[in-house]
Amino acid sequence: MKGSALSQLGQRTAEPPISWLMAAALEKPGLISLAAGFTDNPSLPVAQTREIVSSMLLGKTGQAPLQYGTTAGEERLRRITARRLAKADGQPAKARAYQPDRMLITHGSQQLLYILTEILFDPGDIVLVEDPSYFVYLGIMQSHGIFGRGIRMEEDGIDLAHLEETLESLKATGDLKRLKALYLVSYHSNPTGITTAAAKKAKALKLLRRYEKAAGHPIYLLEDCAYRELRFAGEDTPSALTMDRTANRVIYTSTYSKPFATGVRIGYGLLPEPLFTAALRVKGNHDFGTTNLLQQLITRALTSGAYEMHVQKLRQRYAKKASTMMSAIQRHLPEGVKWVQPAGGLYIWVRMPARLKTDLKSKLFKAALRQKIIYVPGNLCYADDPTRRKPNREMRLSFGSASIKNIEEGIARLGLALKRVM
Amino acid sequence: MKGSALSQLGQRTAEPPISWLMAAALEKPGLISLAAGFTDNPSLPVAQTREIVSSMLLGKTGQAPLQYGTTAGEERLRRITARRLAKADGQPAKARAYQPDRMLITHGSQQLLYILTEILFDPGDIVLVEDPSYFVYLGIMQSHGIFGRGIRMEEDGIDLAHLEETLESLKATGDLKRLKALYLVSYHSNPTGITTAAAKKAKALKLLRRYEKAAGHPIYLLEDCAYRELRFAGEDTPSALTMDRTANRVIYTSTYSKPFATGVRIGYGLLPEPLFTAALRVKGNHDFGTTNLLQQLITRALTSGAYEMHVQKLRQRYAKKASTMMSAIQRHLPEGVKWVQPAGGLYIWVRMPARLKTDLKSKLFKAALRQKIIYVPGNLCYADDPTRRKPNREMRLSFGSASIKNIEEGIARLGLALKRVM
Repeated sequence: MKGSALSQLGQRTAEPPISWLMAAALEKPGLISLAAGFTDNPSLPVAQTREIVSSMLLGKTGQAPLQYGTTAGEERLRRITARRLAKADGQPAKARAYQPDRMLITHGSQQLLYILTEILFDPGDIVLVEDPSYFVYLGIMQSHGIFGRGIRMEEDGIDLAHLEETLESLKATGDLKRLKALYLVSYHSNPTGITTAAAKKAKALKLLRRYEKAAGHPIYLLEDCAYRELRFAGEDTPSALTMDRTANRVIYTSTYSKPFATGVRIGYGLLPEPLFTAALRVKGNHDFGTTNLLQQLITRALTSGAYEMHVQKLRQRYAKKASTMMSAIQRHLPEGVKWVQPAGGLYIWVRMPARLKTDLKSKLFKAALRQKIIYVPGNLCYADDPTRRKPNREMRLSFGSASIKNIEEGIARLGLALKRVM
Repeated sequence: MKGSALSQLGQRTAEPPISWLMAAALEKPGLISLAAGFTDNPSLPVAQTREIVSSMLLGKTGQAPLQYGTTAGEERLRRITARRLAKADGQPAKARAYQPDRMLITHGSQQLLYILTEILFDPGDIVLVEDPSYFVYLGIMQSHGIFGRGIRMEEDGIDLAHLEETLESLKATGDLKRLKALYLVSYHSNPTGITTAAAKKAKALKLLRRYEKAAGHPIYLLEDCAYRELRFAGEDTPSALTMDRTANRVIYTSTYSKPFATGVRIGYGLLPEPLFTAALRVKGNHDFGTTNLLQQLITRALTSGAYEMHVQKLRQRYAKKASTMMSAIQRHLPEGVKWVQPAGGLYIWVRMPARLKTDLKSKLFKAALRQKIIYVPGNLCYADDPTRRKPNREMRLSFGSASIKNIEEGIARLGLALKRVM
């Protein structure tokens, strides 16, 4: 039987670009991975989770966490989460954009991004993404046959002139009708660490509005705030929800997993209609609701204060790891290497001097592997956008999971590898 | 802005037929629901889960459950699960079909059914389903624009003559190329309670093989064994894996959630290539792996023996509930009502006398609602198959979540409602 029974999606979906990296990390003893987006192990809230689960699983009230819940998620968690977001954004709890009936709880925010992609895009559609962007989201797009158009980045987020230029060119080629969203990882972005300035989000929203008539449908701002709570310097930025006057063009997604425990996959989002209803139906088909036990765990962590305390600690921890990595970079990496200083998140985005490639097949990557150090090659973070060549001289370094010692040692090894190839 | 930004899937996906039923159950105080597929609350393993989680979340070993894992799932859980299945099927652990590298762990088996649908079917494709079948799966099909062809049921599973007739007619109309799978809920089926005889599965597999040449690709037997462990009478039946000589045509899916705790969503499946690789990639895009904490919880429940002990208890519990419902049906429902005696699972499938409709708009359903009792109307469990009219005189009654007292009382009320309308 030579023919394939696989669907178009089944045939199209490519291997995740980093599965090779992950396999390499497991197989090579002594290898230091600055590639993985894992979080810090020693600071995981082991004792807190133990205490919460123990107090939760007692007698009759202990039954609910072990039973099915509703598809949208635990009422209480939806309410608390909506209120937290309104508060973080300095908005009244009654503001339309923050109503709990817009709140969907998912199996990690990744699942929400997936469902949003399913309900918004058909094969051939276009998403505007940061250039570079979150590579797992690029993978979802690839799997669904969706094209990406990269918007150039500045220090405080996307280049608005390039956004306008791109919209204008899509209009000119008649492709606007295939454009449904701009996707921004707006806080301490994966991979660049960049936070989008509030004013930029407001202007981007206005720009998108202006092209809706030509598109014939709404164009959404999909704001992925997965790293918002992992800020360790500077002030919080209001989300785009605060700038969405009619409260129907911004989709807000985020997660409790990264700030609390990645093994506890609880994501969430605020969705305007008709997206909420469509997403809820699809979520019902995925799993008719996120696992109840973990929703109640997070609810209790939030109401007891354990969550906030943990996040505070975590911020200090990542601040220290980030500064360790920064100073190691300054000491060990040669001149001409540039990077973005992060104020949060898990990543430092490093640019090599001209003509030094960083991809998996590059001399540098191979030299690094010989030194037992791996990174995420920058080219993997760029959408397949036919209008520009993919940059190939950057790397994403994560200070999330490696120990302080391994961060030091890893950057030193990277420095050695760089010296070898330069 | 009048145009919709929703994708075809987003626009197409219908409201789940039972969301109205679930809302009704929440809103009407005193209502007895024999509709929900929830499991028995008092027997949930509250203390066992508490103990396992407490012993798991200690010191350094307590970190792994709170960290990301791998996309395919915990190595140990995959190995144990594969071995359990081989054993249940009386096969050597080294048999090809039961290799752990074919094992995928998912967020409930529902997620696995979803992913399989994504990788196998394009809009317009056809799935052969039992007539009636699991309505949430019918919902997934509807959402993806997939057509169902219902195969008539006998007491021991699908009518093989009708299966052959259907295959023949698809061949005649040139539609075989759109057929990729036969979907069977083969143990104590939702909704009918029927278990498919081993001989029927073997013959169905052979039949499907015979039509592959005309189809131009493999035709899979997708065996959903979600209720296999909830058997409380008779002997276990070998799965279709044991009949799949080349070990590449049967997909086995099941779950630990229903037998252990529905709030703990851990599903699993054995998938032949190229399905495993395709499903793994899509799973990576969904959530890059099922929540680790719950995988380790199930692993420990399995290795400590807590799982088997719980399932034993649960079987006795459901046996009692089923027999309570059966005898209540005998006492309270009028003559002419027929039903299938289940040997496991959560459901009794009841057929009304001729011309008595059971759908949501029927007199009977309304009368039942007035008596504060609800059931799942049988017509919701039939695929949209243009080749036959949907039967409309059956109901699915669940003895899963209602108490013994409410099962008694609920059936008595249903009897009253029936008397009113007959």
